[in-house]
Amino acid sequence: MVEQLVNSQRTSKHEFPKSGRKNEFVLGADIGGTNLRLALADMAGTIRARWSASTVGILSAPRVVDLIREGTDVLLQQTSTPRDALRAAAAGAPGITDVDRGIVIATSYLMGWRDIPLRTLLETALGIPVSIDNDVNLAALGEHHAGGARGIDNFVFIAIGTGVGAGIMVNGELMRGTTWTAGEIGYMLVPGASETPTERGQPGALETLVGGEGIRTQWQERWTEHSTALPQKISATEIFDGALKGDILACEILQRAARTLSYAIYNLSLTLNCPLFVLGGSVGLHPAFGEATQTFLQARNTRIQPNLVRSTLGSEAQLAGAISLAIQTATASDPVTQR
Amino acid sequence: MVEQLVNSQRTSKHEFPKSGRKNEFVLGADIGGTNLRLALADMAGTIRARWSASTVGILSAPRVVDLIREGTDVLLQQTSTPRDALRAAAAGAPGITDVDRGIVIATSYLMGWRDIPLRTLLETALGIPVSIDNDVNLAALGEHHAGGARGIDNFVFIAIGTGVGAGIMVNGELMRGTTWTAGEIGYMLVPGASETPTERGQPGALETLVGGEGIRTQWQERWTEHSTALPQKISATEIFDGALKGDILACEILQRAARTLSYAIYNLSLTLNCPLFVLGGSVGLHPAFGEATQTFLQARNTRIQPNLVRSTLGSEAQLAGAISLAIQTATASDPVTQR
Repeated sequence: MVEQLVNSQRTSKHEFPKSGRKNEFVLGADIGGTNLRLALADMAGTIRARWSASTVGILSAPRVVDLIREGTDVLLQQTSTPRDALRAAAAGAPGITDVDRGIVIATSYLMGWRDIPLRTLLETALGIPVSIDNDVNLAALGEHHAGGARGIDNFVFIAIGTGVGAGIMVNGELMRGTTWTAGEIGYMLVPGASETPTERGQPGALETLVGGEGIRTQWQERWTEHSTALPQKISATEIFDGALKGDILACEILQRAARTLSYAIYNLSLTLNCPLFVLGGSVGLHPAFGEATQTFLQARNTRIQPNLVRSTLGSEAQLAGAISLAIQTATASDPVTQR
Repeated sequence: MVEQLVNSQRTSKHEFPKSGRKNEFVLGADIGGTNLRLALADMAGTIRARWSASTVGILSAPRVVDLIREGTDVLLQQTSTPRDALRAAAAGAPGITDVDRGIVIATSYLMGWRDIPLRTLLETALGIPVSIDNDVNLAALGEHHAGGARGIDNFVFIAIGTGVGAGIMVNGELMRGTTWTAGEIGYMLVPGASETPTERGQPGALETLVGGEGIRTQWQERWTEHSTALPQKISATEIFDGALKGDILACEILQRAARTLSYAIYNLSLTLNCPLFVLGGSVGLHPAFGEATQTFLQARNTRIQPNLVRSTLGSEAQLAGAISLAIQTATASDPVTQR
């Protein structure tokens, strides 16, 4: 059934921070197609305990909400936190999210959600104010508050995992778009990408060349026993590991992915005139990918020269963003501090 | 020397509008590589008189400022407007413009300006508050206030003349970028575009396929006596006229330009999630270009379906934006209405 891993951990900081209120906490939730991760944090954003569960095979939103409630109970018990000390929560879902109405409009094929009132479901289950957002946007928020873009109000966070997406921050605010899809760059058309229109639910033109699944597909299509010593069934990050060790086929696929990603970053940079790009996601975090992409960007010209850095939060970015949003939500609902 | 055309014209509206103050006026200026155009408008934005002069061969910014002063004097005399009735001015220049400091950082090869304090030069010459901006941004402002994007706070104005540029409006504000170059899409990399890095001052990858000069170059390269009945030396709009009349070579070049432009619009739409694109500029205004581009966009998929319209202001967009900005400038400097 559902594998639940309780990874409760206390941080070394046992004293409460000056900036937060004593004995008040928030919950951050990162809902993914394979895992649900929760963190209980104090009002300064320091994580006090974590909990996670597999979401493989779980398609129903109410079931995910139940899991979040169960995990929250575990976290409160383990940290001996009274329920009324939990001020607010925030959750990120892998899909197009109407932040104002608190509705997940659509997730990818992994979840298959359509118009799920996730905020209301969670507020009912937890009894506290909740905010929700797209997971890539939350990761951008996390990088802005505590990661590679701390103090930088104009940057693009690019998440490369199975697919590709971007969270765009302009003047300290996430760019949303009129139907909440800003940053859906997985379908971007760049040189070398297929010009054939893709169906809904299919990987986009850019994803096919740059995303984890696309890279794995390229590898399998080009793999022969004579072309490489590596096995046919390996992941994108294993292919990049192979490139670092000098495997020719792996190098070729890495170079193509990096060149294509550099085109996408260049296009975003032209459009937004944004000085910083933060690479994240399991595939985007691979050092060989970031370095090769930076090399292609530098070779292009001196006209546009955005700075490209790897996420410093790594897989923690979404959760950090959720905690940050939950603290904002708690503060906004506080009658004393509310403006 | 300098050919000056005085096209003074009074509008049919002789009564002063209720919303503006009586007997107060603003000046809008559109500085181009071939023409300088001025308009005297009342505080409701109605143009009362126009003046224009050739700028061919004029590279010096002080000389252009002198021309603007001369033209302003003519406009004031012709309309019997006392000098102290002129409240403010705004000017658009074809280049990267630091709006905050009032400096034209760089113009294209046509003017060759670098770090010109245009606002201060004009304020000194005219003795009134002045604002300056990039000409494409001003055209977007014009379309927002009085053209194809009236009442729409999220749209992209794409100007296609010799080159290609965009003015991006997000939530009613022009997107500037951190070094004032947001919307410089002429260098965008799309399928079919050259992947070879272009030098500064050279046409960009997108411009080569979509801009007026690029289209003319393609025509001349592909032209033979047997391939078309049209002459070898014609403009982009004449090529599009030929396409409307069924000329095969002209049709091929139009189709390629439209397909490429549809890719650029698609990429912008993915990134910004913006519902409206307004096509302007001498080449962008050609109806065959807009229609063919819209057809390619519609064929792509249902995921992104931005609305594409032609500029309703046409070549007036920049001047309309300059007048709008000048009225804002006058209002902002007014001690009574200033907040």
